[in-house]
Amino acid sequence: MDAPIGIFDSGVGGLTVAREVFKLLPSEDVVYFGDVGRYPYGGRSKEIITNFTAQDIAFLVEHNVKFIICACNTASAVALDEVARNYKIKMIGVIKPGAQAAAEQTSNGRVGVIGTHATISSNTYARMIHDINPDIKVFSLACPLFVPLAEEGYIDREATYLIAKDYLQTMHDVGIDTLILGCTHYPLLAKVIAEVMGNKVTLIDSGEETARAAYMILAEDGLLNPRMSQKPARQGEHRFFVSDVPEKFSPLATRFLGEPVDKITRVDISGY
Amino acid sequence: MDAPIGIFDSGVGGLTVAREVFKLLPSEDVVYFGDVGRYPYGGRSKEIITNFTAQDIAFLVEHNVKFIICACNTASAVALDEVARNYKIKMIGVIKPGAQAAAEQTSNGRVGVIGTHATISSNTYARMIHDINPDIKVFSLACPLFVPLAEEGYIDREATYLIAKDYLQTMHDVGIDTLILGCTHYPLLAKVIAEVMGNKVTLIDSGEETARAAYMILAEDGLLNPRMSQKPARQGEHRFFVSDVPEKFSPLATRFLGEPVDKITRVDISGY
Repeated sequence: MDAPIGIFDSGVGGLTVAREVFKLLPSEDVVYFGDVGRYPYGGRSKEIITNFTAQDIAFLVEHNVKFIICACNTASAVALDEVARNYKIKMIGVIKPGAQAAAEQTSNGRVGVIGTHATISSNTYARMIHDINPDIKVFSLACPLFVPLAEEGYIDREATYLIAKDYLQTMHDVGIDTLILGCTHYPLLAKVIAEVMGNKVTLIDSGEETARAAYMILAEDGLLNPRMSQKPARQGEHRFFVSDVPEKFSPLATRFLGEPVDKITRVDISGY
Repeated sequence: MDAPIGIFDSGVGGLTVAREVFKLLPSEDVVYFGDVGRYPYGGRSKEIITNFTAQDIAFLVEHNVKFIICACNTASAVALDEVARNYKIKMIGVIKPGAQAAAEQTSNGRVGVIGTHATISSNTYARMIHDINPDIKVFSLACPLFVPLAEEGYIDREATYLIAKDYLQTMHDVGIDTLILGCTHYPLLAKVIAEVMGNKVTLIDSGEETARAAYMILAEDGLLNPRMSQKPARQGEHRFFVSDVPEKFSPLATRFLGEPVDKITRVDISGY
């Protein structure tokens, strides 16, 4: 099926998920929406986040997407299920794939989850892990400063290391062997987080797991783009839409995606 | 005149301005609007900020306020003048009072300004200082991490000190003797900033200066609340409106205002 895949996020963070999708599914057309005009979602109420998520999805649906990836942990945690009920299009968030990978990975049954205030308050990661294996102990912690640090390029600085140590000391103490990076910004700080947690703790990147899950679902449902089996495989087209001026999206997007981002269109999302 | 004063901000930061207004004008009724549902303004485009500012002001005008204080540096810098033109009500932002105080304070003619990306890009502080005295050299710098650090209570930490040193080293090197805290969050970090800058540099709190300017204008225009001259002077009433659920506003607000905040009402600002 040659319709595009829709991916949305509260801003640029979801591009770390898009990056994995582009790698695994190079022939797919992708429409990405980043709600940079109302970013960030992580500190807002469930009601506001649900309202924003409904508008983001309505926008993607208008583009006749065949499948929607909610690349925002916060929206996945508190709003996606409720909004998805109103549509026939299949949608996945980043929480379930991350939870599944962690449940499979842990040897000692102790898993840590870090994310925004809203993601952690929702307890969605813990619930999903317990659906898979109720015996796993889940320790959840909000690390809100990681988002601005990642955005400001404070990746490998002493200050970032100190803040990570502050945040993660408890995770260390409770003896987790697996840590879910439950926010799309956190993979940018993976090096610092890994250093603080030590080499006995495996980091799970929810974005990476979500791209894999998306691939499986599209394959099972016969929704993969037929271009994929053509030789040579043709590259999909990637289009980007944002809710503020593109100029503010472009430089950060390039850093998060790891390649230059063009074809960025402005959209008035409050009208959806 | 017994109509209330309107104060608005992108979120909780403006409460540091409200605090000064409550101190100087205890008999005035105040309606405060905090746009926490769309916070923060500092990284957004001029167009979005102007649109949000117009809605914030329309909301306050509906409350028959006699005077409006734009307590948000970002909105003051990029949007206030344009929106204010459509109204007869007098309005002030936080930039001009801060600029005036700095121009009067400096002895060596070298002033620093720190603020959000949007405030600094607008160059409004520098322009206003040059309107007063074109010979003053102005050095402007965005310190975007100060906002999340202040909100997360990272006030007196080693990490905050390191980040402040990173940001402010240049300010130190160029030899300013006066530094404008051009963001309502920064007074919360005044201790760290003062320590990094040393005791030869005077910090200007734009919020404090704005409260003084508001007092002067209301007195000149005969708009002070007549209660003020009654003995004993009656306390004004303070009402708070926010664009997300009040529960998320209350704890931060108490920290920023320095006293418990109640009577918080939710408003759907996108309808204005």
